Amino acid sequence: MEKPKTGQEFVMHADIPAEDMPTWTKRRIAAHGEDLMLVENEFMTGDTAPEHEHFHAQITYVIKGALEFTVDGETKTLRSGDSVYIRPHTVHSAVAVEDSLIIDLFAPQREDFLD
Amino acid sequence: MEKPKTGQEFVMHADIPAEDMPTWTKRRIAAHGEDLMLVENEFMTGDTAPEHEHFHAQITYVIKGALEFTVDGETKTLRSGDSVYIRPHTVHSAVAVEDSLIIDLFAPQREDFLD
Repeated sequence: MEKPKTGQEFVMHADIPAEDMPTWTKRRIAAHGEDLMLVENEFMTGDTAPEHEHFHAQITYVIKGALEFTVDGETKTLRSGDSVYIRPHTVHSAVAVEDSLIIDLFAPQREDFLD
Repeated sequence: MEKPKTGQEFVMHADIPAEDMPTWTKRRIAAHGEDLMLVENEFMTGDTAPEHEHFHAQITYVIKGALEFTVDGETKTLRSGDSVYIRPHTVHSAVAVEDSLIIDLFAPQREDFLD
């Protein structure tokens, strides 16, 4: 699997390996460079992203489905077109209440995803 | 229209004003903070984003439709799930070849979009 840390410019969806995740269904690492990364995640109803935090700024945007998203103790249900900005080092978590497709954006990129 | 430069965390799609754009159809500024911004753009077939560059890193991700996207002289057709990373100060442009919905991510945020 090619996931160069120096960046991938044009990334065709069909070329991205889908990774099985411990608490949700699939992850695909899409376009990225040192300063910015886009990751697509598939959740089935009931899948979770347990509470965590990181030094990267994050935005999550919902393409389809619905998730209960908690940031720093505040929970909202996000649906298609809704988004949330998460400041660095802010605790956040999610539970899918429908089968969902979301994208997560990180600045800078998640080097830990490329190992 | 509320577009605070200090950031917007949870952003519901229904609450975002759709802005008419000179060369494409609609722009909606979604979640953003100082270091990261998500913008949703609607293109109709034939709409364009003329050649431009900026100091922000950018990723464009196609939700639906198809666009011919040119970065630094290389052109590819991007469809649902495809994405492209654009390094700072790299000339890029796009032409919609179908009615399309895309998201553009910027690091840091586009302060010029918030004026």
